Amino acid sequence: MVEGRSDAVEGGRIRLGMVGGGQGAFIGAVHRLAARMDDQYEFVAGALSSNKKRALASARDLGLDPDRSYGTFEDMAKAEAGRTDGIEAVAIVTPNHMHAPIAKAFLKAGINVICDKPMTTSVKDARELVRLVNKTGLVFGLTHNYTGYPMVRQARAMVAAGDLGDIRMIQAEYAQDWLTEKIESSGQKQAKWRTDPKQSGGGAIGDIGTHAYNIACFVSGLTLDSLCADMSSFVKGRKIDDNDNILLRWKGGARGMLWASQVAVGHENGVVLRVYGSKASLEWHQEDPNYLRFTGYGQPPLRITRAGPGSNADAGRVTRVPPGHPEGYLEGFANIYTEIAQAIRAQRSGKKPDPAIVFPTVEDGLVGMQFIEAATKSSAKGATWVKV
Amino acid sequence: MVEGRSDAVEGGRIRLGMVGGGQGAFIGAVHRLAARMDDQYEFVAGALSSNKKRALASARDLGLDPDRSYGTFEDMAKAEAGRTDGIEAVAIVTPNHMHAPIAKAFLKAGINVICDKPMTTSVKDARELVRLVNKTGLVFGLTHNYTGYPMVRQARAMVAAGDLGDIRMIQAEYAQDWLTEKIESSGQKQAKWRTDPKQSGGGAIGDIGTHAYNIACFVSGLTLDSLCADMSSFVKGRKIDDNDNILLRWKGGARGMLWASQVAVGHENGVVLRVYGSKASLEWHQEDPNYLRFTGYGQPPLRITRAGPGSNADAGRVTRVPPGHPEGYLEGFANIYTEIAQAIRAQRSGKKPDPAIVFPTVEDGLVGMQFIEAATKSSAKGATWVKV
Amino acid sequence: MVEGRSDAVEGGRIRLGMVGGGQGAFIGAVHRLAARMDDQYEFVAGALSSNKKRALASARDLGLDPDRSYGTFEDMAKAEAGRTDGIEAVAIVTPNHMHAPIAKAFLKAGINVICDKPMTTSVKDARELVRLVNKTGLVFGLTHNYTGYPMVRQARAMVAAGDLGDIRMIQAEYAQDWLTEKIESSGQKQAKWRTDPKQSGGGAIGDIGTHAYNIACFVSGLTLDSLCADMSSFVKGRKIDDNDNILLRWKGGARGMLWASQVAVGHENGVVLRVYGSKASLEWHQEDPNYLRFTGYGQPPLRITRAGPGSNADAGRVTRVPPGHPEGYLEGFANIYTEIAQAIRAQRSGKKPDPAIVFPTVEDGLVGMQFIEAATKSSAKGATWVKV
Amino acid sequence: MVEGRSDAVEGGRIRLGMVGGGQGAFIGAVHRLAARMDDQYEFVAGALSSNKKRALASARDLGLDPDRSYGTFEDMAKAEAGRTDGIEAVAIVTPNHMHAPIAKAFLKAGINVICDKPMTTSVKDARELVRLVNKTGLVFGLTHNYTGYPMVRQARAMVAAGDLGDIRMIQAEYAQDWLTEKIESSGQKQAKWRTDPKQSGGGAIGDIGTHAYNIACFVSGLTLDSLCADMSSFVKGRKIDDNDNILLRWKGGARGMLWASQVAVGHENGVVLRVYGSKASLEWHQEDPNYLRFTGYGQPPLRITRAGPGSNADAGRVTRVPPGHPEGYLEGFANIYTEIAQAIRAQRSGKKPDPAIVFPTVEDGLVGMQFIEAATKSSAKGATWVKV
Repeated sequence: MVEGRSDAVEGGRIRLGMVGGGQGAFIGAVHRLAARMDDQYEFVAGALSSNKKRALASARDLGLDPDRSYGTFEDMAKAEAGRTDGIEAVAIVTPNHMHAPIAKAFLKAGINVICDKPMTTSVKDARELVRLVNKTGLVFGLTHNYTGYPMVRQARAMVAAGDLGDIRMIQAEYAQDWLTEKIESSGQKQAKWRTDPKQSGGGAIGDIGTHAYNIACFVSGLTLDSLCADMSSFVKGRKIDDNDNILLRWKGGARGMLWASQVAVGHENGVVLRVYGSKASLEWHQEDPNYLRFTGYGQPPLRITRAGPGSNADAGRVTRVPPGHPEGYLEGFANIYTEIAQAIRAQRSGKKPDPAIVFPTVEDGLVGMQFIEAATKSSAKGATWVKV
Repeated sequence: MVEGRSDAVEGGRIRLGMVGGGQGAFIGAVHRLAARMDDQYEFVAGALSSNKKRALASARDLGLDPDRSYGTFEDMAKAEAGRTDGIEAVAIVTPNHMHAPIAKAFLKAGINVICDKPMTTSVKDARELVRLVNKTGLVFGLTHNYTGYPMVRQARAMVAAGDLGDIRMIQAEYAQDWLTEKIESSGQKQAKWRTDPKQSGGGAIGDIGTHAYNIACFVSGLTLDSLCADMSSFVKGRKIDDNDNILLRWKGGARGMLWASQVAVGHENGVVLRVYGSKASLEWHQEDPNYLRFTGYGQPPLRITRAGPGSNADAGRVTRVPPGHPEGYLEGFANIYTEIAQAIRAQRSGKKPDPAIVFPTVEDGLVGMQFIEAATKSSAKGATWVKV
Repeated sequence: MVEGRSDAVEGGRIRLGMVGGGQGAFIGAVHRLAARMDDQYEFVAGALSSNKKRALASARDLGLDPDRSYGTFEDMAKAEAGRTDGIEAVAIVTPNHMHAPIAKAFLKAGINVICDKPMTTSVKDARELVRLVNKTGLVFGLTHNYTGYPMVRQARAMVAAGDLGDIRMIQAEYAQDWLTEKIESSGQKQAKWRTDPKQSGGGAIGDIGTHAYNIACFVSGLTLDSLCADMSSFVKGRKIDDNDNILLRWKGGARGMLWASQVAVGHENGVVLRVYGSKASLEWHQEDPNYLRFTGYGQPPLRITRAGPGSNADAGRVTRVPPGHPEGYLEGFANIYTEIAQAIRAQRSGKKPDPAIVFPTVEDGLVGMQFIEAATKSSAKGATWVKV
Repeated sequence: MVEGRSDAVEGGRIRLGMVGGGQGAFIGAVHRLAARMDDQYEFVAGALSSNKKRALASARDLGLDPDRSYGTFEDMAKAEAGRTDGIEAVAIVTPNHMHAPIAKAFLKAGINVICDKPMTTSVKDARELVRLVNKTGLVFGLTHNYTGYPMVRQARAMVAAGDLGDIRMIQAEYAQDWLTEKIESSGQKQAKWRTDPKQSGGGAIGDIGTHAYNIACFVSGLTLDSLCADMSSFVKGRKIDDNDNILLRWKGGARGMLWASQVAVGHENGVVLRVYGSKASLEWHQEDPNYLRFTGYGQPPLRITRAGPGSNADAGRVTRVPPGHPEGYLEGFANIYTEIAQAIRAQRSGKKPDPAIVFPTVEDGLVGMQFIEAATKSSAKGATWVKV
């Protein structure tokens, strides 16, 4: 491939383990594929299910050595830490409430962590992880995967370069419709745990609102000051929020709105980010991710293609195929994995990581949890303003 | 034309006058063209400018009888009311602060009124107009012209027929960028009066927010309960709001957001309405107005074309050309004029107007003013919830 | 309106008559509306139907003086030519086979002609009209209305200015689906005459292919050298072509393809023009007519909006409303009428018309007939190359 | 992942080798990634460059055992055929003129072949490969990768099910702009060999025209009868065609056009397929590949999303992530690899392959070469009709 990504391996693949992601799971297979795409990881160990039988069967399906299929994450952390060929990183792909204890166990065992989002189910746990990461110096990557899309990188670089002038407004949304009806009552596995506050720690706000918020922060480089969140549960009997309308006030004066919904009929994974500055604006759609619309004030809108004319180096370094050959969700997800791999290689060699390497970190996870907590508090008070 | 509109004239054209709309004005020529499109009006009199010389020159340009070019609206109302061939309706196309006094003068003179929006600059004035219209029984049409688009009619009918189920969310926006810089200081005539609170009565909220709100009400059939408006002036020294982020709570439980901006770089007249129900959703864009996207839950999205398959009678009766031949802003505007003409014809003949006739009325004007007033109040209190 | 078009009347409206266009007709009402839009014409006489009763009823509907409703076009030409207030122009909106005799009658009576397309049903008749127009010096406008769209004007000006470099390829299409089934057998009036070779003079090639060809010539400024036409009748028993695939070779070396179809399910009025040069390309869609996509080689595509940034004077002078307020089919059609009005005003005053005035002429009509005849000949010979 | 694809491994990965694809090559890395995506292959041997030093360096980059990095494909075929753990399949990713000799060598050595397109540079060579494959019974997959896109599978299944009725027209295109200028003279490696008739065997017709033709055949299920090809070289001094306009006549009466261009400014990889039948039509764009537009006659167009409502099993079985999460070029390419892996697994086990397995075969390669040869012949004769 002529572009930024290559499958050349420097110094051997990184040994990867996984907690969660067994038969019937969704996001685990995405993580494995993302790890595999650029050939930077070797998947060698797992505690793939809390159900031991399913864990073993899943390991067999995936060609894991049965000796490295563990019944519990605690066993896995301990055993792998003790092996000379033990895993160098663990991917955590369980329901949300388990992220924190698992991450802690592996960090304490000296193993780098790649964790699905939202990072925890409380700000307190998030702070504890930040503390542990800082103390251990380990790599901690959070799979806010939308930051891996090349045109999101492009957007971030354009804002940072001042192409938009002063940021005035940010309009972010993530709309889905899969929870339009009460499918959690019909045994759908994904719906069941995601609508159970104990396992998910929240509804649309944590599952998808935090993604929209994350790319708003990532692209704009801004820090939120306060928010006013009007959260609803439109489906009767549902215990978590399924639609969130949120006003945002950013430090420095920018304003914005964020809409997260899982009951918006006609939307699949409608992540949309629009950023408006005093000089220009940009617009990006996850469902058509290879393009960025950029409009200078008083100029016709440009349609910038990934790796095409007007595309910058930040997009190029996470690109695999030429413009007009679409890349998608998995490529974006893989970019996060490959960036983390580069950080781990730097760690291996004791060098400082290349400053061009970018991936969501434990601090981003904390910021996300603070957003969720503030929104939940605002909504509980009748949608009043809450400082983040 | 094979469709709903025809230029057949029943019983003679309606005699129309105009206040405002002289040389250099924008919306006056739009009103005249809208009146002319279906050949239902004859433009015969005007007080086209508050500047007498310009008024006369404008009248000459437009081929008016100089005797019916008036120096003041008061003179015009009086003189026309006294003629046997006097105007049957007046179009008011002045800056906003003059709408109420002019409308009152003509209503009192027994002349039907077609008024540009926002109807007044205060709820008090709006109530007074409602009172006068009810008292006189005259026709009062408000040119919230976006309700004239066929696919907006289609949307309204689909909601009314229950095609969407219970309405849950309404996302409305009207984004422009023409006030991104401080052009009001450079002598641009439109910018000057529209950013002067005395003439306009408010900024983006009245100029365009009220349009977005109007079609949200029109299509959904819902009544607003309360709102929380975060209004900004991003351009230094500007006296009115140029960006409004608003949370909406509708009676019956629906929620929504409304965004009005005149500093959103890259937007021209970006009116977008999205309505989500328990069974389906619909989406309409003013800049691509001949299409309606309709998605039933669990169904692929449909693209319904004006006058094409799936298009209903409500769209058809305000349609002129076959599907695939686009109609635009002027046709939508003309639909309002032609609907009002039909109401005036009913009045002429003493018959009840056909219930299919729909146009924004003095009551809609009051609803709009209440919205503006509530938003302004909410914003002044730091963006807190205000009952409408 | 702030843009190029105005409804100011200089020296009185132009007196217009019409042949055809009575009750149940389609294109007649479009012509009347187009004439009315900018208030440049006064519609005063007609021979609206070959059926006398319908002619009179139609005249009454439209508010014509009964004395100026004629039973035949011959009577009309004679009577109007003899009046001091007789018509200055006639609009011919009959089935195609009547265009030539009617046009001749009015030209001979000294009356300007506005004729629907295709101009005639033979090259011979077309040549005769060219001769007559040249001899009389009268204005002859042909309503190839797509040339009236502002962004088609913009495209033409960009090509003429060399923005595209040398033209290499032209891809033109006009796809419809209304003749997918044999509706001519079910009494549909439009389908009946348009699929009758005697009345239409040909099928898709003349009805719509000639439109696509016309804007290809208009925008590129090129002259066709030869063509190879593969014409089909997909619907059994149909006497005219309903799908035409055509290869084009232009003088100077450009190549192209043209597709005209009336059996292309899913298309309404899909006129698309794409022009590629050595330096840049442009793309225009009639169903989304307010935008032009322009791409310089090695540059991101620009989306130029009618009257917006990057829009030129050629588009501006035929524009009525600001960017983001869509104009459509009727506005484009009206531009042809208003351009012709300007030419007639120049004639009235004995002045040379402003060179900026552009509308399809009798010569364009001849070029169109030569295209139809060459395509028909090519197809009859098994789709071989034919010089135009 | 909840969808059709899984990374479960049955019976161990398939041992894969590669000829070509060393440092600086494009398509080799794409093949390796495609092989890796679903974890069905293990890449173990290569003759990665005709330059021995580069071959070895490339092998090292990719972590190959140096013993299995070969200097020539002949050595590789021989050595690997002699190993018990030798490769089970070879991917051929060299310039076109080498495909045939390499494929023959591996087929003769009893090794399955995955070959890039066009398959050969002559019909004669193509026939020889067909003969060899039939004789050996080996698996031969041709990477006409666009057939791997889920929505292309969906389209094919819909046509096969009769959803479109009788096919009437097929409009296919593949437009690029990368050869707009004479970059082959400036040392661009890809341009150099692709515009050299000796290495490529032809220009746009073979490089991309054959892709467009392949999916037209794949989706429609039709066989071409004859064609008329007008091929050009717009760039001076270029030895191969860079723009091809082709008329198509299919057996059974359907007609069509095919446009392949590498000088169409503004196009990146614009593969577009439109198929029209007596009952419905469908449209697919490679640059927005997750959607299929389907329109039943007299119905509003549907937008069918990959894995979404209306998406069928044929799309589902080659899908990895939920609707709204875009898949792209690499996923489509990987589908070809994974289908071939399934065929090889069937071969391993001596079972008949699942009839659901679909990938382009050696026969498709022959059909492609016949198309190229017929087009070249037609063009040489001045664009006359040639039977295929």
